[in-house]
Formats: sequence, structure tokens, C-alpha cells
Amino acid sequence: MNRLAFALAALSLPIPATALAADGPMTLEQGADKVLTHDTIAWDFVEGITTEVGPRQAGTEAEKRGRDWAVAWLRDQGFANVADEPFEMETWVPGDLHKAEILSPFPQPLIVQPLGGTASTGPDGITAEVVYFKTVADLAAAPDGSLAGKIAYISHSMTPTQDGSQYGFAGPARWIGSGIAASKGALATVIKSVGTDYHRNPHTGGAGFPAGVAPTPAGALPLPDAENLERMFERADGQPITMKLTLTPQQLGTTTSGNVVGEIVGRDPSLPPVLVACHIDSWWNGTGAFDDGAGCGIVAAAALHVSHTGQPLRTIRVLMAGAEETGLWGSKAYSAAHIDEPIAVGLESDFGADRIWRFESNFREANPDLHAKLAASVARFGVANSAIVASGGADIDIARDQKTAIIDLQQDGTRYFDLHHTPDDTLEKIDPVQLRQNVAVWTQVVGILANEPGDILPKD
Amino acid sequence: MNRLAFALAALSLPIPATALAADGPMTLEQGADKVLTHDTIAWDFVEGITTEVGPRQAGTEAEKRGRDWAVAWLRDQGFANVADEPFEMETWVPGDLHKAEILSPFPQPLIVQPLGGTASTGPDGITAEVVYFKTVADLAAAPDGSLAGKIAYISHSMTPTQDGSQYGFAGPARWIGSGIAASKGALATVIKSVGTDYHRNPHTGGAGFPAGVAPTPAGALPLPDAENLERMFERADGQPITMKLTLTPQQLGTTTSGNVVGEIVGRDPSLPPVLVACHIDSWWNGTGAFDDGAGCGIVAAAALHVSHTGQPLRTIRVLMAGAEETGLWGSKAYSAAHIDEPIAVGLESDFGADRIWRFESNFREANPDLHAKLAASVARFGVANSAIVASGGADIDIARDQKTAIIDLQQDGTRYFDLHHTPDDTLEKIDPVQLRQNVAVWTQVVGILANEPGDILPKD
Repeated sequence: MNRLAFALAALSLPIPATALAADGPMTLEQGADKVLTHDTIAWDFVEGITTEVGPRQAGTEAEKRGRDWAVAWLRDQGFANVADEPFEMETWVPGDLHKAEILSPFPQPLIVQPLGGTASTGPDGITAEVVYFKTVADLAAAPDGSLAGKIAYISHSMTPTQDGSQYGFAGPARWIGSGIAASKGALATVIKSVGTDYHRNPHTGGAGFPAGVAPTPAGALPLPDAENLERMFERADGQPITMKLTLTPQQLGTTTSGNVVGEIVGRDPSLPPVLVACHIDSWWNGTGAFDDGAGCGIVAAAALHVSHTGQPLRTIRVLMAGAEETGLWGSKAYSAAHIDEPIAVGLESDFGADRIWRFESNFREANPDLHAKLAASVARFGVANSAIVASGGADIDIARDQKTAIIDLQQDGTRYFDLHHTPDDTLEKIDPVQLRQNVAVWTQVVGILANEPGDILPKD
Repeated sequence: MNRLAFALAALSLPIPATALAADGPMTLEQGADKVLTHDTIAWDFVEGITTEVGPRQAGTEAEKRGRDWAVAWLRDQGFANVADEPFEMETWVPGDLHKAEILSPFPQPLIVQPLGGTASTGPDGITAEVVYFKTVADLAAAPDGSLAGKIAYISHSMTPTQDGSQYGFAGPARWIGSGIAASKGALATVIKSVGTDYHRNPHTGGAGFPAGVAPTPAGALPLPDAENLERMFERADGQPITMKLTLTPQQLGTTTSGNVVGEIVGRDPSLPPVLVACHIDSWWNGTGAFDDGAGCGIVAAAALHVSHTGQPLRTIRVLMAGAEETGLWGSKAYSAAHIDEPIAVGLESDFGADRIWRFESNFREANPDLHAKLAASVARFGVANSAIVASGGADIDIARDQKTAIIDLQQDGTRYFDLHHTPDDTLEKIDPVQLRQNVAVWTQVVGILANEPGDILPKD
């Protein structure tokens, strides 16, 4: 295939990726250093899947094309034991009609997209008065039944944070907001997008409903539209604000998804492998570049670059999990299928493509020498050591389920929630320089782990 | 109404706008200086019309609501002789279905919106092979008939420029591209948006077709989608790229639009007035904040602030032209209706809300003292003098038709084409500090002009 050649042309790099190995034996450190300026593999993955496949909504034919593409790419790159391991899931799709319109007192259209797992208004839409809640707590304090026949609007603004921690503050507006509103009788819910950009980008994402509460229609407004709606409340002098909302998502029932896996086989395949994970699916509204094509490119490129410095002791297994976005289906299925096959350590890349700035493990106390060695090894890339205990990302349930070692290579999330779950999650948002820093750090860390003979998280 | 109070609350300003006059007599210079930090009138206009009306597509009921809103606002602010002067126009509307989908070899949806004046594909869309032209010149060089049955794609990338001059370079892709393609047999045309942002923003705008060439469907792709399509061409290894395009704009025939006018009446109404113009319509896809709610707010606020420093000698007439975007209908109608009523000088604000950086007139040689006085008067706001001959904006046809004086207060256009004709043209894009600098410069210039006893552009 010509993909690598195209990537090289796009990046104007003078030498092909294979030259990383062709210069003769390199140390791991030399290899990681070279990656910092020369990697093209991660970009090749994310450019390829976003261009040749595009959006990859979990459980759909588009995700299947994404998995097929990744399987072919892994084989092209020389990975062993490449497979698409199937699992079944309950599949939600967004449907075609996504409209919000203020009917009175200030008629104008707003942009809206549905939240994952929510119900349809039907193609004719619903029309109701909007009730404004500044925070999730305000909504939770509304009397039972008080939202009967109404559309709830939840504001709850988000601030950018380097560590992404405000997702925990603002996320509940989406995670539980429509469920709370439904439990109080609301016909539907619209939220200010859980996001930090001021473009006409709805930020979709999963929404949950309490047991016994039927899902209602629910959608996200872009920040400009949400603030416009809030100004309407300020200017309406108490007149009711009426919205027509049309959202037609569908539950398709059970469909098949899959987890794509591939391996750099180690010198001692009997040792538990190093698991490096990402997810292959994306929301339908973007091309899944930042979330999580980049992550898949990073982990796969790192595994290859480690192999270019010599066959590692342990196998490095790449897991490109299916159906992360709509309920971590792939991560759960992978853990269920492989729970009896111990892994040595799990790492995930799923926070965009900006610079890694902090190293965390869950074995700093149990294996302080290895923790210190790893942290010291990435200091030259600007990555700080941390006492925070790593808990791992969504796609490495198996590491948590096996209570094994976990490392988090924390990426700069300052602009992550500008793009997260939006139409704007497209290739050109990725900074090639920062993407390569990710690959270099991952190469360094995975290379050490894959050549570590002893337990990474020693058993008690 | 409570609009002013809301605007003040939003801006956290300590004193109301009326205090600009309440402190007692101010010189024009003192008034303009105070405007720089205290104006709330321009913001009040643009916040009000974008919130209470929103998009204002030329010739439609939405534009009518915009004119009604502006008439009420001008009266509230104390303007005299406020009117909505009707004219007839041919009206195009965008319709509901705007879809582009790559069917092969890399199936995925792209975002598209129709160009003004173009035809419908019908609701079932059209499917055809896409032919890629890097520039308008490449398209123009294609043999006659060579595009029969095809969809033309025109790339022709744009670079941001402070003076907006690259619009002249990139604009033809939209202005004449679909017309050239149609004349060579193309079924339809898609263009890379004439814009400089990397969001999923189609940049619409008017498209022209040569005499005798029937309009075809034509749409704009956002830059991320256009670059994705270009990568598909790189990766297709010569396989045809097939697109399904569905765009359903409509020609409504003749409808009524109008020009909103209002005056600060001068001490000598027999003298030709100072005409300050903007346009009240916007494209349907944004709320018309930058283009041109801000311009209307700037010119109206300046006229009021001049009056707060004392009744001017000449009348200041505000023209908020209707239907600029789809063919300068309002500007032409205003000139036709008022051609026999001389104006002293025409100025227009229609380039966003960023800082004014250059002063230009068309009377630097004919009236050097006045030109120098005006240029010197705005130097303290960071505005440079220029030898460029002002030609005026779209809404002051009458000034060109009367061959009278024109001033261009050039705004920084570096980010103008990030927002121009897109969904992202929304209120929060406006920087209140730069908006006030505009109002201060306009107050200073209009105040001098409105108190000038002699001809501004002396007759030969």
C-alpha cells in the first residue's frame, strides 16, 4: 500500500520509518530519541483510518470497516497474531433528524445533537416549554413531577483543565442530567455541551437513566447556542420559552462488534505480556482522530519502535477495543474472554494527541525501583514523576480485574474538551510534534516494561 | 425595555451609557475617549438582534423580524425619522437537506451547505464521480464538455490576511467556480470553503453563473472535510471517487425586503447628511453577529455618541441595508430611491468587530486638510493614515453613484474569514474591547464630518 509514502510526503520527512531500524542496533533510549523527531507510524494510522474509514459508531457497519482497516494495517506493519475478536452488544445509533428550534418568544433555530442511549422524539418532534437549571444540583432539587410536560435545560459550564479533571465536575450534566430530569417527569432534556470550545459543536456522549426510568430524548447544544438560550431567558421578562425538539436516534438491538488485537511476540512468550490499549470506535459526528485514532496510532507505533531496537523479552499486545464510547463493551468483553491469561501491566492512550506531561503508576510503593527507573527514563521528554496512583483508562478493564500493574501516561488535556465527542474531532487538529512526543515516551516506557524480567506489580 | 440593563450586567460596567452625556458638555475628543472604555450601545444592538432574532436570511420573514427589531431599537435609542423603506427582490432560500456522502472508495459523510443562488439536487440527491481541481485556473483550463455527468471539486486554499485581500484571491472559487464548472457540463460543484478556520464550518456565500448557463447545485465543504477529500484522492490509487450530494435550496421568486433608516437630525438639515451604513440581513447558518450585527451596532452607537457631545451641524443618517448578502439589493434600492438627495460622505462598517487599524479616504488630494485632520484625530486609537483611495463598502452604492466623499475605516480582518458566512458567526466571537475601539474611532470621525461646514469632497 502507498499509505506510508503518502504520510511521508505530507510530513516532508526525509527518511522512511523503517530507517529507524536500518541504521543498525540502537539502544532503547536511542530509538525513543529518534522517534521524537522521525516517527511517521502513528500519523500514518490516524490519517489512514480517518480518511479511509471516517466515523466509526460503535456496533455499526462503519465500526466494522474500521476494524477491518486496522486489522489490515497491523498485518501490513508486521504485527503477529492479528485478530478481530467478536462480541455482542446493544447498539444505539443517532438517526437522521437533529433539530432544535425556539418557537417563542424569540424564534430561531439552534444546533443540537442527541446524547448516546437516549430516545427519539419521533420525526415530528415535540414542542414544550423549557425550564432552565444552572447546575445539576439545581435540577436535582426540583420537586418530583415538577417537570411534567417540560423540556429541562441544564447549563453547568466547564473550564479547561490540563489534567481533564473538570470532566468530573461538568460531566454529570450529561451522564445523569437527562435521567434526573426524566425521573421528575421531563419530556426531554437539552444540555449545554460538556465542552470548552465556542464553535457550533455539540458534544455528544453517553447519557444514563436510573433503573425504572424510561430513557427520554436528550441532546447537547453547542456553547454558543446554549449561551444564546440563556440570554433569551434573561430577555424574556418571564414569558415562557418554547422549543421544538426533533431527535430521532434508534436502538438497533443486539449487533456484533469486536476487539482488534495484534502482537509483537516476545523472546519468552510464557511471560505475561505488556498490554497497550486504545479504542477503535468513535462517535458518528467526527472522524475519531483525537478520540481515539491518535491513541491507537501511538500504542501501535510504540510497540513497533520497541521491536526495532531488538525483540523484547515479553510480548507486547496491542488492544484496539471496540465500542468504548457507548458503554465500554469491548473492554468488558476483552476482560471476560482473557481474564485467565495474566497480563504484566496495562496502559491505555485515550486522551487526544497532545504532549505527555506526567507519569503515574500503581506500583510506586510495591516496586519503587522500577517506578523510579521508568519515571527517570522519560524526564528528558518533559514528563514529571507523580505520586498519584494510576487507575488506568476505560479500555484496560482487564488490568483492574486482574489487579495487576497499571501505568498512566497523562496527556495535556487543555484543549481535549474543545474537540471531545464533536464534529471537530478531525485529523488536522493533531499536532504532529506533540504526537511524536507521545510515541517517544510510550516507546521508552513500553520498551523498559517489555524487557523487565520480574513482576511489575509484585504479588503480596 | 430591559435590554440595556441586561447588557450592562453582562459587561459588569459600573455606569450606564447615558452617563456619557450626563457629565455635562464634553468635547468630541472627550466623548470618543470615553466611548473607548464605556460604550455599551454597540454591544446592546448586536446582542439584542442575535438573541431576539438570530439568522436573518435576505428577503425572508426572519429578515423582516430583524428589520422590525432594528426599527424598534432605533426608536428606543432616540433616533428620528426611523423607517423601513421597502423594496422588491428575488429571494433564494437554502432549503432543509444539506448532505454530502462519499460512496466509494472510502464511504463516509462530509458536511456541506449550499451556496447562495444555486439550484437544488432534489431531495433524492445526485450521485456522480468527483473531479478535483486545485485552482480556479485549473478548472477554467478543463476542456468544454469534459465535466459532463461529473461533480467538480475546487480546492484553492485561502490564507488569513489583515487587510482581507486574500478574499480576492480565493473568492473566485465561490464567485465563479460553479458557473465555470456548469458551463463545462458539470452536474454540480463542491468547493473548499472560502475561509481560514479549521472547524466543521461551511462558508456559504453567493455564487454566480454566466448568462445562458443554468445554475447547478453547488455547496461548500468545511476545510477539514475538503482536506479529507483531497487525502482520499491521494490514497485512491486512481479509483474514481463517488459522491452523493443532496442540496435543496429554492428560489422563492419576488419578495419584499427593506432598508432600515434613522437619523440624528443636524442643526442645518439643508446640508447633505453623513451616511453611515451596515447591513441588517445575514446568511441563514449563523446569527449574523460579526456579519453584520456588529457593524450596525458600531455605526448606530457612533451616531448617538456624536449627538451626546452636542447636536451636529449635519444630519447623520444610519442605513441598515436589507439583503446585502444575496446581491446588494438594499444598497441598490437605497441609491435608486435617494439618488437625487445628495449625501456629504458615505462610510460603511461590514468587516467584523476587530480593531480599526487604517484610515482611508477618497479626498486626500481634493481636500488634504480635512483628510489630514481626520487621520490625525484617530492616531491615538492606533489607526494609521494611508494613501490608499477609499472605495467604500457594499452598502454605500449611493456614495459611488453620486461620486461623493467616501471613508473606509479598515478593520483587522485576520480572523474575519474564520467566521465569515459560517454557523460560527455568533455573538461571543466579538471582543468587547475591540468593538468599543471601533465605536470610539467612528465617533471621532463621524463627529468631525457631521460638523464640517464645507464640501467634504469639493466638486471640480
